[in-house]
Amino acid sequence: MNVSSEMDKFARKLERYLDEILPKEEHFPREFHRAIRYSLFVGGKRLRPFLLEAVYSLFRKESERVLPFAAALEMVHTYSLIHDDLPCMDNDALRRGKPTNHMVFGEAKAMLAGDSLLTYAFELMASRSDFEPSVTLEAITLLAGAAGFRGMAGGQFVDIDSEGKEMTQPLLEYIHTHKTGEMIRAACLMGALLASAPDKEKEAVNEYGKWLGLAFQIRDDILDCTGTARQLGKSPGKDKKSGKATYPALFGLETSLHLAEEATSKALSALDGLGKTKKEVLEEVALFLCSRET
Amino acid sequence: MNVSSEMDKFARKLERYLDEILPKEEHFPREFHRAIRYSLFVGGKRLRPFLLEAVYSLFRKESERVLPFAAALEMVHTYSLIHDDLPCMDNDALRRGKPTNHMVFGEAKAMLAGDSLLTYAFELMASRSDFEPSVTLEAITLLAGAAGFRGMAGGQFVDIDSEGKEMTQPLLEYIHTHKTGEMIRAACLMGALLASAPDKEKEAVNEYGKWLGLAFQIRDDILDCTGTARQLGKSPGKDKKSGKATYPALFGLETSLHLAEEATSKALSALDGLGKTKKEVLEEVALFLCSRET
Repeated sequence: MNVSSEMDKFARKLERYLDEILPKEEHFPREFHRAIRYSLFVGGKRLRPFLLEAVYSLFRKESERVLPFAAALEMVHTYSLIHDDLPCMDNDALRRGKPTNHMVFGEAKAMLAGDSLLTYAFELMASRSDFEPSVTLEAITLLAGAAGFRGMAGGQFVDIDSEGKEMTQPLLEYIHTHKTGEMIRAACLMGALLASAPDKEKEAVNEYGKWLGLAFQIRDDILDCTGTARQLGKSPGKDKKSGKATYPALFGLETSLHLAEEATSKALSALDGLGKTKKEVLEEVALFLCSRET
Repeated sequence: MNVSSEMDKFARKLERYLDEILPKEEHFPREFHRAIRYSLFVGGKRLRPFLLEAVYSLFRKESERVLPFAAALEMVHTYSLIHDDLPCMDNDALRRGKPTNHMVFGEAKAMLAGDSLLTYAFELMASRSDFEPSVTLEAITLLAGAAGFRGMAGGQFVDIDSEGKEMTQPLLEYIHTHKTGEMIRAACLMGALLASAPDKEKEAVNEYGKWLGLAFQIRDDILDCTGTARQLGKSPGKDKKSGKATYPALFGLETSLHLAEEATSKALSALDGLGKTKKEVLEEVALFLCSRET
């Protein structure tokens, strides 16, 4: 499969769905809906929704059924970006080459837009799923766990807490596997969960997602060092300037490239538990994501 | 029933449950769990959980079953207070007589503590409910709807957006019914929903909750004008100083008292759809809440 064009195709489908389920901008309070839509439609790879759909499609047809969950993943991801960009967090003025939410709407409204995206993600899954209610509850539990204090938010907390302190490998791995890794793992596992995949295959997908998440974030760190502003849609070298915890900062570029490869090959090894065809698809996805230049 | 002592009793039970389900402070990252617990255990009437339990108990025994939902309501309420107190919102240094979350932990960590409480509320309902999965999904939908852009967050947005603009009665009613009212309505309705009450009684409870929420918030505005710091645990008159949208500011104190009574009596009228015993309990609750001095 051509991963890049499959990602694009699914991104368009997801965006049509998001547009359909979100209140239009003419509804009161109009500016609120504008703020919510602004960050959701500013672009992005839609990686987490794509991973969910790709894994689900290994096991089942009619992948439209996953749309409420795919949309929820993207909303939770978007909320985290809006809050992360705020002055009290990373204080970023640009995201994907556009002004960040609070630069356009102000801090208070940006925070509320993030809060609402997080909240609506759960409403969406609970109200629009056509899977078995018990399976839907498992998916909600999975996403909430991956996003909360044991997952993404925990990683963000440690990231902030470690600014200006001495960084160690275990701490950096904690930040990366939680801040980015958990949502990527959850996206993969949710695909297998909704497809009611056998336990052994669920476990393989979960392990794959875990290592893929780490590899993805190390790649992100590397690109921040080596990419151009045009490729990244943000100022390269920003992480280094702000003293952010990154792999290149701790290990240097060479070793980081090696560690990214190592994480990728762990992701690939996890796929041994799947059949040949399934394995090939997820291998291609991992290799594509871990060699990307943007 | 003695509403005040029943509220206290249930508050203690809820607090024991919250303590049990939240990670202990010795778990990594320790400060995160401290920040989350700080605002949750700083006190408060636990009004929303109490309303849920009180309504549920009209219809069913074994009200321990509602604890995950009662805790979720309180977590969502607490998250909203933490975010509301932040410098970019109301910029409050005191809440319930104690320093607000960001005064203790800083803005970034306070925001993340709020985010995590919101997220964990959904995880809790999805993972710990022993009601039918389809009923659990309805309760999640209800809470998310009441907390999100069509509910509480929508009210907060309009509240912020209207600062410094001319206030009108419809706008002020929108703010109050959404910012406070929706979560109180949801608490009441959730009790009836989890109890699988008949549709007619659900509708009565929903209407009751709607008017109770408005009456409660008008009472809050009035107390801000007339209460003492000791009674309120915050500086009285703060709303007026900050140009906040309140009933006394728009209508004066006398008319506000009258409007609070009017909303209370609408709440009471809604109870005509319930049997005598049920009606009496909820009447007492409404009259207690709408005559409170703190």
